[in-house]
Amino acid sequence: MPAAISLDECRALAFDAFSRAGVCRAQAEETADHITRAEADGCKSHGLFRLPGFIASVRSGSADPQAEPEVVDAAPGLVAVDGRRCLAPLSIARGRVLLAEKTRSQGTACMTIRNSLNFSALWPDVEPLAEQGFVAFTFVNSQSFVAPAGGTTALFGTNPMAFACPRGDGRAPMIFDQASSATARGELQIAARDGHEAPPGAGLGPDGKPTTDPSEILQGVQLPFGGYKGSAIALMVELMTGGLSGGCFGYESKAAYKGDGGPANTCQSFIAIDPVRLAGPGFPAHVEELFGRLLADGDARLPGDRRLANRARTAGEGITVEDTLYATVRELAGRA
Amino acid sequence: MPAAISLDECRALAFDAFSRAGVCRAQAEETADHITRAEADGCKSHGLFRLPGFIASVRSGSADPQAEPEVVDAAPGLVAVDGRRCLAPLSIARGRVLLAEKTRSQGTACMTIRNSLNFSALWPDVEPLAEQGFVAFTFVNSQSFVAPAGGTTALFGTNPMAFACPRGDGRAPMIFDQASSATARGELQIAARDGHEAPPGAGLGPDGKPTTDPSEILQGVQLPFGGYKGSAIALMVELMTGGLSGGCFGYESKAAYKGDGGPANTCQSFIAIDPVRLAGPGFPAHVEELFGRLLADGDARLPGDRRLANRARTAGEGITVEDTLYATVRELAGRA
Repeated sequence: MPAAISLDECRALAFDAFSRAGVCRAQAEETADHITRAEADGCKSHGLFRLPGFIASVRSGSADPQAEPEVVDAAPGLVAVDGRRCLAPLSIARGRVLLAEKTRSQGTACMTIRNSLNFSALWPDVEPLAEQGFVAFTFVNSQSFVAPAGGTTALFGTNPMAFACPRGDGRAPMIFDQASSATARGELQIAARDGHEAPPGAGLGPDGKPTTDPSEILQGVQLPFGGYKGSAIALMVELMTGGLSGGCFGYESKAAYKGDGGPANTCQSFIAIDPVRLAGPGFPAHVEELFGRLLADGDARLPGDRRLANRARTAGEGITVEDTLYATVRELAGRA
Repeated sequence: MPAAISLDECRALAFDAFSRAGVCRAQAEETADHITRAEADGCKSHGLFRLPGFIASVRSGSADPQAEPEVVDAAPGLVAVDGRRCLAPLSIARGRVLLAEKTRSQGTACMTIRNSLNFSALWPDVEPLAEQGFVAFTFVNSQSFVAPAGGTTALFGTNPMAFACPRGDGRAPMIFDQASSATARGELQIAARDGHEAPPGAGLGPDGKPTTDPSEILQGVQLPFGGYKGSAIALMVELMTGGLSGGCFGYESKAAYKGDGGPANTCQSFIAIDPVRLAGPGFPAHVEELFGRLLADGDARLPGDRRLANRARTAGEGITVEDTLYATVRELAGRA
């Protein structure tokens, strides 16, 4: 039987686990919150499942649990953050304040983050920007796990991107958050743990041949979604992260990785745009017309709708945590 | 036997055809140049093949062949262009001057274009920005031809996006330019003309069922590439064009379309970023390392390499034009 806990309990467990591992208050709060938001939205692969990995990166010395990120005002429209090897949620939270300020004054702004350790969900990174009325993109790389279309060697990270658009009438922003790999690595890890197959096209085994065995793919390479077009998206994410930040590409991140099971040292970027200064005040209503038509068409769904339904449910009901993971988390939090 | 002509002759034929149709010098020059650049890069579906359609839009009154676009300085980082129903290449060329100026001073800038008629290739729109050292995105919609994943009704345009990254050592920028539909509409039109099949997954017939007959798909709906992830990209392009510009979404563009066979009234946006102000002067060399690794892996290719190889070849050899099209173009240009 999985354990049933409240979101507050989830946040407290994660915070306590970080604190016991020597993580400073700011990093612990932001990372615990990030994990809790993933759980609240039903994204198990990026919730408490990530906690032991984050702590492993602290224990191995990959992460600096006391680091305070450096936020540089690089130009009227640019913010450059050096995470100084912090857990990524803090670097994002620190930089986002200046990014939002610049977007409001300039109409658009761009932020890069390098030297931070990220393997979290992405939508929580852009949601606060869309809640302030901005259209927002974010891109993040990881250590290399994905071969380009036509290749057999890991070059790209799983390279997710997220895109957020504010909505009218107090609705939560529309956000999609998707890996440019055919399958998110967290999903493959969970499939391997639970003995499920990976979907066809997810990757190649160590022999360079297609397979649906998630363990084989985890030892071989993943493939981009959608063939050469998805491969181009993965390349774009690599350029917008390791390239634009002056940090590390996926293969550089992998070369520096300590094999601790935690997140690698990765890069991220953001673009935020104030839509009302371009489209006028009718923007939210216009967008609702498009969304209304989409939702009226057969089985079409708005990206993120399932997450938001989970969020509404877990706010009252709380979440469930698989037994073995719950025992691990309690132990890390000193509650065993 | 197809006709063999030089690029200069291609440009002159297109310019003369526009001039004879009453198109002003500025629109004629920019659009003829756009068509010629598509031919030079071997993209037949967006070259002279598009000329009769552009002229049809002038004859039907959809396009205003004398329009001068209005370029508005909307914020320190924002440019808003109203094309006033011009042929799109002029609105882009006019707005790009201010976009580049703002990107240089602010570090990043964003431009929207509404009310212009576009069904051209996209890479020529961002290449001049990358040649100035900027990373650049562009997004454009079209009248609706594409159903969202799970749906059967045309909601999105074919919604291509292009992404450009400057390179070192005087190399032409890396640019990918891809429809968010599984297949570009121009390719389906050419397949239908030539009696070829469409690839599986390209679309649904008028009965809502999958088919590989390009004529059936042209009467039914196209589908996004890569399932729900490509559908999210198509939605993003719709929001970044019809949404952000305050212009028309794909379905609004279709409702206003006169059925003249030419381009519809569509919207476009651009984001440009100065990478050196974020990543430092090592940016181009770092990017070359990534590209070098990609090119060393099996059959992996850098997006646009085939285009650039065509460009190198056609600069000396010129191009060939299929007979029927050549006769049409000569007639439009008054050379019959």
